[in-house]
Amino acid sequence: MKKLIVQKYGGSSVANEQRIINVAKRIIEYKKKGYKVVVVVSALGDTTDELIKLAYSINKEPPEREMDMLLATGEQVSIALLAMAIHRLGFEAISFTGQQGGIITDRTHTKARIIKINARRIKEELNKDKIVIVAGFQGITKEEDITTLGRGGSDLTAVALAKVLKADFCEIYSDVEGIYTADPRIVPNAKKIDCISYDEMLEMASLGAQIMQARSVEVAKKFNVIIHTRSSFSKKRGTIIYKGGKKKMEDVVVRAVTLTKNEAKITICDVPDKPGLAAKIFSSISQGGINVDMIVQNTSRNRITDISFTVQKDNLNKALRITNEISKKIGAGEVFAESNIARVSIVGVGMRSHPGVAAKMFEALADKNINIEMISTSDISISCIIKKKYIVAAARAIHDKFGLGGKK
Amino acid sequence: MKKLIVQKYGGSSVANEQRIINVAKRIIEYKKKGYKVVVVVSALGDTTDELIKLAYSINKEPPEREMDMLLATGEQVSIALLAMAIHRLGFEAISFTGQQGGIITDRTHTKARIIKINARRIKEELNKDKIVIVAGFQGITKEEDITTLGRGGSDLTAVALAKVLKADFCEIYSDVEGIYTADPRIVPNAKKIDCISYDEMLEMASLGAQIMQARSVEVAKKFNVIIHTRSSFSKKRGTIIYKGGKKKMEDVVVRAVTLTKNEAKITICDVPDKPGLAAKIFSSISQGGINVDMIVQNTSRNRITDISFTVQKDNLNKALRITNEISKKIGAGEVFAESNIARVSIVGVGMRSHPGVAAKMFEALADKNINIEMISTSDISISCIIKKKYIVAAARAIHDKFGLGGKK
Repeated sequence: MKKLIVQKYGGSSVANEQRIINVAKRIIEYKKKGYKVVVVVSALGDTTDELIKLAYSINKEPPEREMDMLLATGEQVSIALLAMAIHRLGFEAISFTGQQGGIITDRTHTKARIIKINARRIKEELNKDKIVIVAGFQGITKEEDITTLGRGGSDLTAVALAKVLKADFCEIYSDVEGIYTADPRIVPNAKKIDCISYDEMLEMASLGAQIMQARSVEVAKKFNVIIHTRSSFSKKRGTIIYKGGKKKMEDVVVRAVTLTKNEAKITICDVPDKPGLAAKIFSSISQGGINVDMIVQNTSRNRITDISFTVQKDNLNKALRITNEISKKIGAGEVFAESNIARVSIVGVGMRSHPGVAAKMFEALADKNINIEMISTSDISISCIIKKKYIVAAARAIHDKFGLGGKK
Repeated sequence: MKKLIVQKYGGSSVANEQRIINVAKRIIEYKKKGYKVVVVVSALGDTTDELIKLAYSINKEPPEREMDMLLATGEQVSIALLAMAIHRLGFEAISFTGQQGGIITDRTHTKARIIKINARRIKEELNKDKIVIVAGFQGITKEEDITTLGRGGSDLTAVALAKVLKADFCEIYSDVEGIYTADPRIVPNAKKIDCISYDEMLEMASLGAQIMQARSVEVAKKFNVIIHTRSSFSKKRGTIIYKGGKKKMEDVVVRAVTLTKNEAKITICDVPDKPGLAAKIFSSISQGGINVDMIVQNTSRNRITDISFTVQKDNLNKALRITNEISKKIGAGEVFAESNIARVSIVGVGMRSHPGVAAKMFEALADKNINIEMISTSDISISCIIKKKYIVAAARAIHDKFGLGGKK
């Protein structure tokens, strides 16, 4: 039986006509080698951001169903153009929207979850020897409403398809050559990592490494889909993401430094120190469909306390509105928002069993006179919220402190 | 029971954010008056042309299924943004793609025909008191492939919906105030026509008046849908298109001058003068899905003849390829194409019963020293193919000759 490969190309890989042609050529190489090829594509270049901007210029709180209707067009353009490019090179390809690809999701617009994939049409066309191109990032509810899977959702489409189609492997193409010990644009001596475990990748993805969407790594882990993340601009081997070899993991304490700038902090002042109020606040916010990330509650003085938490910047307006309402309801004080913040994190399975890692990270920041506003830790990561303007200095200092850099 | 209105807004009516908001306001006016409102929208501004250009930059003969996949995104953007604009103004709206609107078509990609409309979801949402916005120009086959209805197909969507929903009337909004005796950008003293018959409108539309797509006028005629074509930038009454009052029609001989520049001429030289060859040529071309418009065959000399015909410029490459093949097969000579041509036409039901109309038109051209390359006539129109560079002079001369102009 023919081997089957799922390839996903990110927006920068198809940002202009020449790049689309190049991607078509790379796809055809695999086809010529005898593979069945399923391709998942993102929207061209910055299309999604431009569409979001357009939406906000018309309505500052656009209905989410309509937002999905709008955003799904980005990938629909890509799949059509890529199919045209493949045809031009003399091979047969057919493009599918999320709906046509059978990607059934729940109804959580703008961050829907895949319920199942009816891959009937995809399989039919593969059996006709066609290259099948599926729009990433989008799906359809049972009621036939268009949904999107959230930022980086095309990765999820690719991994889920790899699972359902029993692909031999899943390649995730972007404009970088793999996973690095830090973002090389920010930390110039960052090194490429050859292999990384799902758990570490998961932590990195959720902490700002923009190579892979966190949910897609979760799904890959769950179904043991081996991912090769690599560059569409070179033939070099990238980074393999897999369940991980234990031995190797223990050698290294900290694997990478990540950062994120898309969070904002909300503080509710003077929350009465009564049981159940925190629960009330955060259940209201989560009912609004907003994920809260870090939460910090200061020790109470005079039976009142301040509660701070971070949310994605996209959700700041909505979160603020909800927080203001709930604050009034529970008799708390003013609500402040701050969006000039950033998060710097270190990730590594090894750090579990090594004491002093956190202290070393805080030292690196202290050495540069950078104040820490919030701290959060997990099994395999430590994150600090700092002022946004210090983020580059912070990332470099920590990367150096743990000796992650290459020689060059 | 509430009155139901179908409104269609063309690309220029929604070309930017402010215009989208203005359209939303106009829609809400009708909603406030108690109407059920169904809105059909075209792609923003020149989106469709830009998408076509993009496609051709990648593949000079893009597969038509993929072309439809690409073009359908234009209207999907419009419906989402318009729904967002209506929400911002405090009213409930829901957008539907062609598929969601139940617009089922045949499989003739890029110029599909509507087979039926399953208006279930539209009716459901109207009954929930929502404004329903449907993407114009697009539909879906039974196999769930996306199709488009051809240039101006949004008009067809609107008229077909007006029929199926038993709308009280159908408004077609564009950037002009109605139907004119000639394109006012070309013939400055052109006058607005208050009422016009389906037949005259049909002829004008197929002869280049860009207000209404010909097929949508056909459908309107078939089902007696009364159309009000008007400007989205003013409150003025536009032109009513209806079955026509006979008396009024006979008063006027020529109603309007139209022109079109999107045709190209193909000539096959030295076609053997044998029965059946013309049929062979034109059945091959129509099997390629290409509509031929004018056909001229010169008197044969030495048992060979030249055959010329016109096709839409979009189809020129494909038509040329087919024509070259068939020419070889039937032993004809060289094939030439000319795209520097234009067509000027006069339209009017009255001309049937008035002799000398054609002569008067040819005189107007002769007065300006304009050579006629091809002539075609119908019951209610006469068309001449001339060099493109003379088209403005020709339109003005004919408009004057028949005294169609206003005073100003």
